[in-house]
Order: sequence, then C-alpha cells, then structure tokens
Amino acid sequence: MTYRAPVTDIAFALKHSAGFGSALAEGLYGDLDEEVVDAVLAEAGRFASDIIAPLNTVGDRQGARLKDGIVTTPDGWKQAYRDWAAAGWNGLSGPTEWGGQGLPHAVNSACIEMWNSASLAFGLGPVLTMGAVEALAAHGNDGLKKTYLPKLVSGEWTGSMQLTEPQAGSDVGALRTKAERAGDGSYRLTGQKIFITYGEHDFTDNIIHFVLARLPNAPAGTRGISFFLVPKFLLNADGSQGPRNDVRAHSIEHKMGIHGSPTCTMVYGDHGGATGYLIGEENRGMACMFTMMNQARLAVALQGVAIAERSTQQALAYARDRKQGRASGLKEGSSAIIAHPDVRRMLLSMRAQTRAARAICYATAVAIDRAHRNADELSRQAAQERASLLTPVAKAFATDIGIEVSSLGIQVHGGMGYIEETGAAQHYRDARITAIYEGTNGIQAIDLVARKLPVAQGAAVRGHLADMRRTVERVGAANNPAFGATGARLGEAVDSLERATSWLLGRPLDDASLAGATPYLRLFATATGGAFLAEEALAAARVGSEPEARIAIARFFAEHLAPASSGLEREVIEGADSVSDVALA
Amino acid sequence: MTYRAPVTDIAFALKHSAGFGSALAEGLYGDLDEEVVDAVLAEAGRFASDIIAPLNTVGDRQGARLKDGIVTTPDGWKQAYRDWAAAGWNGLSGPTEWGGQGLPHAVNSACIEMWNSASLAFGLGPVLTMGAVEALAAHGNDGLKKTYLPKLVSGEWTGSMQLTEPQAGSDVGALRTKAERAGDGSYRLTGQKIFITYGEHDFTDNIIHFVLARLPNAPAGTRGISFFLVPKFLLNADGSQGPRNDVRAHSIEHKMGIHGSPTCTMVYGDHGGATGYLIGEENRGMACMFTMMNQARLAVALQGVAIAERSTQQALAYARDRKQGRASGLKEGSSAIIAHPDVRRMLLSMRAQTRAARAICYATAVAIDRAHRNADELSRQAAQERASLLTPVAKAFATDIGIEVSSLGIQVHGGMGYIEETGAAQHYRDARITAIYEGTNGIQAIDLVARKLPVAQGAAVRGHLADMRRTVERVGAANNPAFGATGARLGEAVDSLERATSWLLGRPLDDASLAGATPYLRLFATATGGAFLAEEALAAARVGSEPEARIAIARFFAEHLAPASSGLEREVIEGADSVSDVALA
Repeated sequence: MTYRAPVTDIAFALKHSAGFGSALAEGLYGDLDEEVVDAVLAEAGRFASDIIAPLNTVGDRQGARLKDGIVTTPDGWKQAYRDWAAAGWNGLSGPTEWGGQGLPHAVNSACIEMWNSASLAFGLGPVLTMGAVEALAAHGNDGLKKTYLPKLVSGEWTGSMQLTEPQAGSDVGALRTKAERAGDGSYRLTGQKIFITYGEHDFTDNIIHFVLARLPNAPAGTRGISFFLVPKFLLNADGSQGPRNDVRAHSIEHKMGIHGSPTCTMVYGDHGGATGYLIGEENRGMACMFTMMNQARLAVALQGVAIAERSTQQALAYARDRKQGRASGLKEGSSAIIAHPDVRRMLLSMRAQTRAARAICYATAVAIDRAHRNADELSRQAAQERASLLTPVAKAFATDIGIEVSSLGIQVHGGMGYIEETGAAQHYRDARITAIYEGTNGIQAIDLVARKLPVAQGAAVRGHLADMRRTVERVGAANNPAFGATGARLGEAVDSLERATSWLLGRPLDDASLAGATPYLRLFATATGGAFLAEEALAAARVGSEPEARIAIARFFAEHLAPASSGLEREVIEGADSVSDVALA
Repeated sequence: MTYRAPVTDIAFALKHSAGFGSALAEGLYGDLDEEVVDAVLAEAGRFASDIIAPLNTVGDRQGARLKDGIVTTPDGWKQAYRDWAAAGWNGLSGPTEWGGQGLPHAVNSACIEMWNSASLAFGLGPVLTMGAVEALAAHGNDGLKKTYLPKLVSGEWTGSMQLTEPQAGSDVGALRTKAERAGDGSYRLTGQKIFITYGEHDFTDNIIHFVLARLPNAPAGTRGISFFLVPKFLLNADGSQGPRNDVRAHSIEHKMGIHGSPTCTMVYGDHGGATGYLIGEENRGMACMFTMMNQARLAVALQGVAIAERSTQQALAYARDRKQGRASGLKEGSSAIIAHPDVRRMLLSMRAQTRAARAICYATAVAIDRAHRNADELSRQAAQERASLLTPVAKAFATDIGIEVSSLGIQVHGGMGYIEETGAAQHYRDARITAIYEGTNGIQAIDLVARKLPVAQGAAVRGHLADMRRTVERVGAANNPAFGATGARLGEAVDSLERATSWLLGRPLDDASLAGATPYLRLFATATGGAFLAEEALAAARVGSEPEARIAIARFFAEHLAPASSGLEREVIEGADSVSDVALA
C-alpha cells in the first residue's frame, strides 16, 4: 500500500479550520486565488505520491552510507531530489527577490506534509534548507545573501542546521565549538557537532552549514553564541566552486528509523579551522537560531501529521481488505475487520487525531503568514504572538499523535504489522524521532508555559480561548443531532483549558508550573484540535462537502478524545506536589 | 546499562499487593516459607542479571538465522538456555509428578518477569513450553504425559504453540490445517502455520509442537478444532530419538524486534503428513488451547512489566548521569536531568505504571494458584473467576504500558535514545509485539467485556470493586498527609469503574458494548493498579519498608494516572454512537 496525497482533505483543512480561506478572501496574499492554490496542491500531491513515496522503502532498507567521508543516499534518492528541486518545490514560499515563488507558508506547509508522508527521511532535508533560507534572509548581510540565497532557495544547494554537541543538546548554551576571527572578516571554526541531519550527502554539489559557535572570551551560556555560515566548498571570487572547507562528516549514526537520511557527526578544523562567515552580530546567534528553528519546528510538526496520515491510509486499506471473524448483522461468511467496533474505534482515533493535528499545524502556518503580511504593525504583532503560542503546541502534539497513530497502525495490522515487509513498522520507527528533534516535546511544553503563555499577560491564549468558545456556541446553534455531544464535550474541554491557563498565569514560573507543562500542552491541543474539527464540520455542512463524514469525525474527537481534558486539568493544577524525587531515590 | 533484577520490589509486590503473603500465611502452599521464596527470587535475579541480560544486545544484532531448514540462535544463547534449564528454572512451578518443583505460579511469574527483563526474545521461548506443559498435563492421556512431560518439564525439550494460519489469526476458527486418522491411533497433519515462535531452533534436540488442526468433516469454526502433539523427531519404542517427522520450518520472519527469537512459518506434510497425537477429544481442541493460552497470556503480560522495568532502570540511570541545563535552586554548574520536573514526571510515570502492572500480574498469578489449591470447590471456583477476570486486564494493560514506558525511556534519553547502540530503541521495538501476540489487546478487551464480566452475574467484578473500596477507605483512615489526594482520586476511579461496569452488565452484548471494550479495560486497570499501589504503600508504612517512596509512587499514580478515569468512563458509556463507519467511507 503506497501513499495517495489527500489533497481534498488538505485543502479543506487549510481553508476552513486554519483560516486560510478568509485570509485569501481578504487579500492577505495579494491576487493569489483559490484555483492556483488548488493546482499547486494537486501537483504537489502527484509528485509526493508518484515520485517520492515509492522511494520510502528502499530508503529504509539501504539507508544512507558513509565511506571515506562520502555519503551515498539510497538508490533513486539523488535523482528524485534533483527533480523535486528543479520543479521549484524548494522555493515555493521562498523570497521572490532570491528566486522563490513567494507563495504562502500555509501552502508550503501543506506541501511539506505531503513530502513527508511520502517519505519522512526524504522530506526532512528540504525542511532544514528552508529554515536556513529564513534565517539567512532575516539576519544575513547583503553579500552573504547575494552569494548564497539564490542557490539555497532553488535547492541547488542544501542547508544544514548545526547546533548540537555531545554536552549541548537541549542545553544549547553549553556548546563549545570555537570560532576565531581570521582578520579578513571571516572566522575559523574548530570543534565537533553531532546529530547533524543531512550534514553530508550526494544530492547537491555544495552544502551550506549553519553553525552555532562561540568566540574567544564570549559570555557563558546562550549570550555568548554566534551564528555562522560555513560552506562545504568555499567559493571563488566569481562564485564558482573553490577549495574544500575544513569540515567533514566523521561518522553517521545507526538509528532506529529515518535510515535514508544521514545523521552525521561533523568535525571542524582538522587543518586549522573551517572558514565561516558571521550571520547577524557576534554573540547574538540565538536570535538567528530561533528564526531557523521556529520554521523547522512547524515542519517537524507537519512530519507528525504526515506519518499519521500515511499510517492511517495503510491501516484503513488493510482493515477494508483483511477478513477475520463475523461482525454483528452478518449471517454467514467473514467480515472485513473494519466492521468490528474495536477496529473502527482505532481507525477513527487515527483519522480524528491526524486531522486535528493537521488543523493546528496549518493554523500555525496561517498565523506566520499574517505575522509577515498583515497590514498594520499591531495586527502583525498579534499574529506573531499567535504563531509563537501555537508553534510548540503544533510541534509536540502533532509528533506525539504521529507516534500514537503509527502505533495504532501496527495494531490494526495484527501480527502482520510487526513484520518489516508490511511497512507499518517503518512508520512507527520513523515517527519516533519527531518527538525528540528540533526541541524535545518536553522542551516544547516548557517553552509554551514559560515563554509563550505569559506574553502580553496572556492576550494570545485568551483570544484563542474566546475563538474556541465561539466555535462551541456555533455547534450548539447548528442544532444538528448528528453532532451528538460535540458541543458539550468541547465546552468542557475549553473550560478545563481556561482554568488550567488561569492557574498557570496566576503564579510565578516555578517547578510546579513546569511539572504540569506536558499535560497542559496536551490539554491545549485537545481543546484546540477538537474546536478546529468542529469548525471543519460546520463549514462542511455550510458548503456541502462531505458534511456527514466531517461531522462524524468531529464528534468522535469530542466524545472520545476531548473527555481526557478533565484528567489533564487535574494533573496540571493538582499534580505538582507528587512530581517529587522521593520515589526515585 | 544492563539490568539488575529488582528483587526487593518484586518480593514486596508479591507479598503485599498481590496477596501472596496472606496465601502463604494461611498455608495455601503447604510448608513453603518466605525464606525459600526469597532465596528462589534472589537466585533467579542473579541468573537473569548475570547470564541472560548480557545476551540481549547480541540477540538483537545477530537475530536468529535460518539456513537449509536449520535455525541458529545468536551467539551464547544455546548455552544460556541449557544452563537455565539445568538449573531447574523451566520446571519451577511444573507438576512434581513429572519432575517439576511444584512451586507457586506466583513465584514462577516473578521469575518470568526477570527472564524477560533480561531478554524478551530469550524469555519468550520457555513461556510457551510452560503453557504446553499445562495443557498436556490437564488434557493429555497417560501415555502422552509419561512420554513427553518429563522432558518438557525439565526443559530438555521445548514446546511450541501452533495456532495461527494466514487466514486464521484472531479468528482461530478459520484454520485449515488438516488432520486425518492414520488408523493406528495417530493422525497425519498437513497444512501451514505462520508466526510460530521458536517453531525451530538449536537449543534442544527435540521440539514438541502443539498444533490446532481440523479433522475431515469436522464442524465449521471453533467447534471443529482438535489439538495435537507433533514432535519434531518421532520417538522409538524405547523413548530414544527416532526419525524426523514431516514438519519443517520453511522461513523465518524479518521482524521489528525480538530478533533473537525465531518466528517461523511451519510446513506440515511434504511427505504425506506429520504424525500427530490427539490431546483431549476430537473437536474439543479449543479447551486445550485456552489452557495453554491463558498461561501464555499472563506470561505475555509479564513481558510488558519486564520491558517496562528494564526501560525504567535504563532511563533512571541515564537521567542521574546526564547533565543538561540548570534546575531551580542550583546556583551554578549544570544539573543531572533528573532534577528537571518534566523529566521527573516521565520517570515517575514509568515507575508507577510498571509497578501497577506488576501488581496486577502477580495478583492474577495468585488467583490462579488459589484456583488450583484452595481447600473447597466453591472458593476454587471463585478464585478461577477472579483469575479469568484479571487475565485479559493484565495482558492488555501490562503490554500497553510496556510500550508506553519504553517510549518514555527513549524520550528521557533525547537524541541518544534514537541511536541503536544506546539500547533504549531495542526495548521499544521489542515491546511492540506484546500488544499483538497471544490475542491482540483488542481481543483481550472483548474477552473481558463479552466473556469475563458476565460470569455469575458479575460476581467477580463486584467482589473486586468491593476490595478496592476497602483500600480507598484504608487510605483515608491512614490519615497520612503524604498520601495527598490518593484516596479521593482512587475513590473517583473506582466510582467510574463501577458505573461503567453496571452500564455494561445492564445491557445485552452488542456493538455498543464492544465499542467501549478497550477504554473499559483501561479504566479497569487504572482503578485496579492504583488500588494495588495504595495497598503496597499502606503495607510499607505498616512494616517500615521504604514507606516514603512507596507512598509517593502510589500518590503519583493516583494524582497523575487515575484522573484519566472520568474520561474513560464517558468513552464507554457515551461513546458508542460515534464509533460509526460514516467517517471511514
């Protein structure tokens, strides 16, 4: 069973729950119209389904291989990457002045989902290049931008993100890679980076590394970190390829999944130091990193949606095909297992969570677009705050459900799910990293509670709560029995979120708030995902697009997943005292 | 980080929450005393930690290999198995008349946990032999018992369980393997079995297969299934090894985990049919299968506990060692990550769920012992009903949390968790099968709701609810502030379980009850696990054995895991209508 891009669902979520439809209608994207968007999504869907998806299995089996410093990607991957870049996908939402098409981040996000459903290990590379483009465009000087952006936007070169060191993972401030001024405006970097995704590969002739390092005598911690551009090959004055820079992949990791993507240990300075160019100001590298990272966090969130979508498709196909037992109502013969209530419950849980996570991700992308494009500074600021609030929720929730859904995908297959040839196990193995990289989900929860909630005295979260209340009211007003208890259960979820939010906002940040951060994030996502699905259901009834099915999935979410909210609220508000070390001695 | 058997915790759970202590005191096990039990557990812990645990990694890397019909197990495994059997572990609770030691199932269950913590793939094999012993001892004729039981009890031969066929997984009644009467009292089997664990291996000179097959003209479905003993090598009249039987391993599966254990496709009848011997009566094979299966289900439940325990140990060790960031209260330098509240929450969740699942499994084992050993028929019957009720709960809950805990184990390790060399990923891969084999967890939930609850008008579940109410009262009466909200939260969980139980018992079995079966089982386990941990905490306070730590873990469970109960209750009672196929079209 391969992947077919769910272009209709994707477009529907984009327009009706993520708010892309109204943004388009109000002219946020200039003269861009729905037809163009639909055409782009359809074409992306074809490329993902027809070209990339068939490479996913070979990627897992062969993996990326390192020999004599050279990484070879799996059969067919290099050509697929080049075709993909040549078709313009890398620069879809890239800046037009550097050759990008300037399309909305929201549309690019939908495409990122599709590339990653087709193959997580393949889709991961471009995501890092796009983050690097964002950071360089925002913080680089004109010379660097002119030299590097066109080829990074086109995908002729890729960008890598180099933060982690053995002693500096979540604690990025502990990094030790050194950068010393060379006297000619450039720097010389020495040190080691680990877990560098696509740090070395054979897709492109050059690779541009974006590296965090520390200047001599820099302040300790994150205030002493600077951000550098370090090309694999230096460039001659005319822009042609110059000598090899003093950076190399020393080894690649043997990982549980995403085998096709090389994860490298990079060594800087075997011969005195790799030449690097400062981006932004000295000791201000964290700002650049966050620009790159926020984009990448949403992309990883989309990976969660992507693997959940692919797992759901595969499980649904199997459940329709596999006959086993006899469901109630059938007189003789055996039933497809989809007819059994417990299997249906699993499949509905998969679909409902996938769509909820998708809606949250796309809504985040629209907020990012608004933060850049809204007419006035105040509304750009508000949109930025909304994007900041939603980004950790999208990242942690979508990747958590990506793991849960891919696990259900195995379960639906029974014993066949555990056999590698079936493919369900690869999704499960691939998905597991997404809760870890680009900031573990625990870090996302802390970011939400410690940094994002308190902004403007909680204005963004209060606005979001008010939006959800309106959704709950609209569900009630629809007065449609097909919604069942959707309104009631969502209303209770929003109540729980509101109380937990007030509790957090009403106290200083301390160990008690941090102890509840993860259940708080899950509560936030549960209420939000449920509200977004209800919005889709209401819109479907309005425009007549599969209303029964969309109402049914919103209802399933409200009646089966939203009821967890009261328990999550308790964990946040009453659970801190029991997160003690007494039982871990 | 290797495994150290937590012998103290194991003995404590056995005695104080599982009811083994009072069974011992009242003489259920004759003159067996606590000292002997402690000595057995300590020795098993040494064997598991020192001999088996070091073989776990090589088992994963090498896997079992098949060549020319011969399976080679990983380096060191054959010798370890032979040493293990020679030490008498295989027959620990085996029938004394056939050479077993006749120790309690409860003690053997504790040992099974340890073998499987040390290596799931290794521990899996003996579990099947033990189930086969049980079935043969209960249903076989004297001749078969005399011939086969001594060497199956000693472990000189192993037993395999052969049920599944391509079209007959959960639906065992759909099996097609044929058995024809040979005229001499034996049968000739032809057909194919799949997913046969240790169907072929190099540990022992002979392997005794226990095979479900269908006689000519047998009734359709499960009423036409018979149970056969089919040795790999036939025996000569003097009991010595005779000719090879007509059964062979045709291939072994390429699985996501438990690589060390060969999972075979078995072919019967290349040369006219494998010789088999009927166990029990013709067409009454299901009863034999359930004898074998119930034992195996509890053993798989113990695998869930086992992998959770090992994952927790490894994550704890890492979290104490790995420094990253600065926790509140620390002025300078960096903290071990265990000091961060979110990491502590993960570790506590791991430990609390592991111990809750352990208590449920051991309580099931004690109920099995009572079903065999209680003085009068009525109390044996009651114990049997309790064992039957708890078995599906133990199997599904313990394996589900085994998966969840091993996933948290990866998360605590951050990026290192995704690297195979760390070992956390192997636990996660190994654990995933346990929710599938010996009856998927969905089948367990259906078994609980459809077959186990209604027995004797719910007498067993009502007795269990009353037990838990008493625990809640005792927590209240203890009047110890260290319990926090333990009593309140557990009381609510028991309320939820009681309402959901009454709802299920008050209606005919239909799609609505089946739709809620999985959340019902989770609710059942949550209330039960919480109550058992509270019992351990109360006992710890009474006998002065780590009371602070045991109260803290009971409290964490009650305040963080038990609050899910209200949502689970809603799913059961109000969720059925939304488990429809409307959204899956």
